Amino acid sequence: MRILGIDPGLAIVGFGFVDKEGHKVTPVQYGCIQTEAHTPDEERLLHVYEGITQLMEKYKPDAVALEKLFFARNVTTALPVAQARGVMVLAAIQRGLPIAEYTPMQVKQAIVGYGKAEKRQVQEMVKMFLKLTAIPKPDDVADALAVAVCHAHSYSLNSKLNEVLRK
Amino acid sequence: MRILGIDPGLAIVGFGFVDKEGHKVTPVQYGCIQTEAHTPDEERLLHVYEGITQLMEKYKPDAVALEKLFFARNVTTALPVAQARGVMVLAAIQRGLPIAEYTPMQVKQAIVGYGKAEKRQVQEMVKMFLKLTAIPKPDDVADALAVAVCHAHSYSLNSKLNEVLRK
Repeated sequence: MRILGIDPGLAIVGFGFVDKEGHKVTPVQYGCIQTEAHTPDEERLLHVYEGITQLMEKYKPDAVALEKLFFARNVTTALPVAQARGVMVLAAIQRGLPIAEYTPMQVKQAIVGYGKAEKRQVQEMVKMFLKLTAIPKPDDVADALAVAVCHAHSYSLNSKLNEVLRK
Repeated sequence: MRILGIDPGLAIVGFGFVDKEGHKVTPVQYGCIQTEAHTPDEERLLHVYEGITQLMEKYKPDAVALEKLFFARNVTTALPVAQARGVMVLAAIQRGLPIAEYTPMQVKQAIVGYGKAEKRQVQEMVKMFLKLTAIPKPDDVADALAVAVCHAHSYSLNSKLNEVLRK
């Protein structure tokens, strides 16, 4: 099962594809889509949509996991990111892909086992899980891989739970 | 010149097509796209995207005008609307349509001549401008027509200004 993890943004969209086979989770491809600050928002949205679409066509994920947005502080920054998130969710649903959402706290809980873990701890764990030689840069890429790994773990847990419940 | 005015939303998207010839602005078609409250957000986003795409294909607008979002109070309601707005902007830019944005205050200013006008006053003016027999319902439809009329007016003003500046 191939999972695409996304850290949504308008300036930088982090993405990470991982393969999950049994308990093993291996990285396939990761990186980020970047858009120019001085171009109109609508062109940046198109760029993000086309970028994520191309990635989906190339790496053919079976599921998409995104970080949930919540901005308590700055709504002005939140809205462009939410618009970008909308076009990424659209790209996924147009391909009939199941979409999972996790709050940053859920991601931390799944990866470090503690919902208030430091960013750095999460990154170190992701590096270890995926046997990477370094923490991917920028942070958006590491965050995207984290949400993909989080989904891989949650998926295992849910499958086990369903098995137990079915018995 | 045909303008599509949109009042963005996830539950209800108001739309209004108007034709502008010289000083005359006439309504072409208006209504709303509605999505079911109990369906997942991603399906609602797809429904909005496909709905607005079909309308664009049928009525072939030359420009799109949208209400700008700003939510000082409730970010939780703002984010799903912003996501929906993202897929509508995407539909427009995919067709190469120019996109204009107006704050509610700019719309009121353009239509009533007073940025703090009451909703009802705006609706009455829109009804009068477009020679409608009644104020369109729900409010989202009236708001969409208002932003379309606002763009028609602003467009005239800008064209005139450019003519003057060119001389």
